[in-house]
Amino acid sequence: MGRWEPDARERLVLAALDLFSEQGYENTAVAQIAERAGLTKSTFFRHFRDKREVLFGGQEVLTEMLGNGVAGAPEGAGPLAMVEAALVAVSAGLTEERRAHGPQRSAVIASNPELREREALKMVGFATAVEDALRERGVSELDAVVAAELGVLAFTRGYTTWLKTGGDFAEVARRQLAEVLEAVDSLQRAE
Amino acid sequence: MGRWEPDARERLVLAALDLFSEQGYENTAVAQIAERAGLTKSTFFRHFRDKREVLFGGQEVLTEMLGNGVAGAPEGAGPLAMVEAALVAVSAGLTEERRAHGPQRSAVIASNPELREREALKMVGFATAVEDALRERGVSELDAVVAAELGVLAFTRGYTTWLKTGGDFAEVARRQLAEVLEAVDSLQRAE
Repeated sequence: MGRWEPDARERLVLAALDLFSEQGYENTAVAQIAERAGLTKSTFFRHFRDKREVLFGGQEVLTEMLGNGVAGAPEGAGPLAMVEAALVAVSAGLTEERRAHGPQRSAVIASNPELREREALKMVGFATAVEDALRERGVSELDAVVAAELGVLAFTRGYTTWLKTGGDFAEVARRQLAEVLEAVDSLQRAE
Repeated sequence: MGRWEPDARERLVLAALDLFSEQGYENTAVAQIAERAGLTKSTFFRHFRDKREVLFGGQEVLTEMLGNGVAGAPEGAGPLAMVEAALVAVSAGLTEERRAHGPQRSAVIASNPELREREALKMVGFATAVEDALRERGVSELDAVVAAELGVLAFTRGYTTWLKTGGDFAEVARRQLAEVLEAVDSLQRAE
């Protein structure tokens, strides 16, 4: 088997998700994942630090995209428009391939407390990235925290919707952000 | 050493926090915690499932208090008033003793990725409890999610403030909720 495996990463992801679903995340070893993918353990470790990484591999890239989206929002944009720009920017990382694995990945995470914790921290990381980028653009601490939280809420709701509907994540997330903001409005009017 | 140790739990918490701070969470064994507290390992296990539990022990109680606060809010209260009631209810669990350990506990958690993940999931659990209780009271799914998120934001900000200022957590958290809601307002006006 050669060192160069053009679709190795994708094959490893598919093998891992299938094994996690079939026999549980805890009961799956890296060696089994590699074997199922028809690859070696060392190929696995060229792509992933450990089996958990298969589920959370794209996080750094998405986090960076969110921050860059805020940084690249037009001059004069308000904080919520900057958050919208972050959601649009991150859509570049939410590819059709990612969507194809999404439901299986979500089911594996939901079945394991350690993975749920990891996923929760990932969302905190997203919020922090947006918050930091907003503060970098002069938004006050409180406004940045609140806008980032609303943005992450739109992200997670948008992600769930997008797994079902497909299409452009940017559009889905934008609609979610608008809905979240309308809900905030109506909540305040209800008091 | 008798089985009955009136302040065993408190002594174990203090010993654990000191050891975690001195030598790191990862490098601390349950046997050491028990020894430092002048108690046996089996006394430790009567109070805590494992060393992580020392840091997250009160979570179930606080989660329940939040849900009960929503459930017990006056008839006719809006969703945000129900969230405020949850913050007031949870203050019963935020005792002076808890505050005394708070900064050391926060520092230990911040120093360890696994503990940060656990803490993130705890906050998700808080949000879910409030959200579920709101839906139980007839609040729509979206409104419940949004109101719960704003409530947890007020909780975490309130907690940080309260560790510094002391006083009644209910008052601190109420003020934070008002500030968060004002920020949402001004963010929407800024667009």
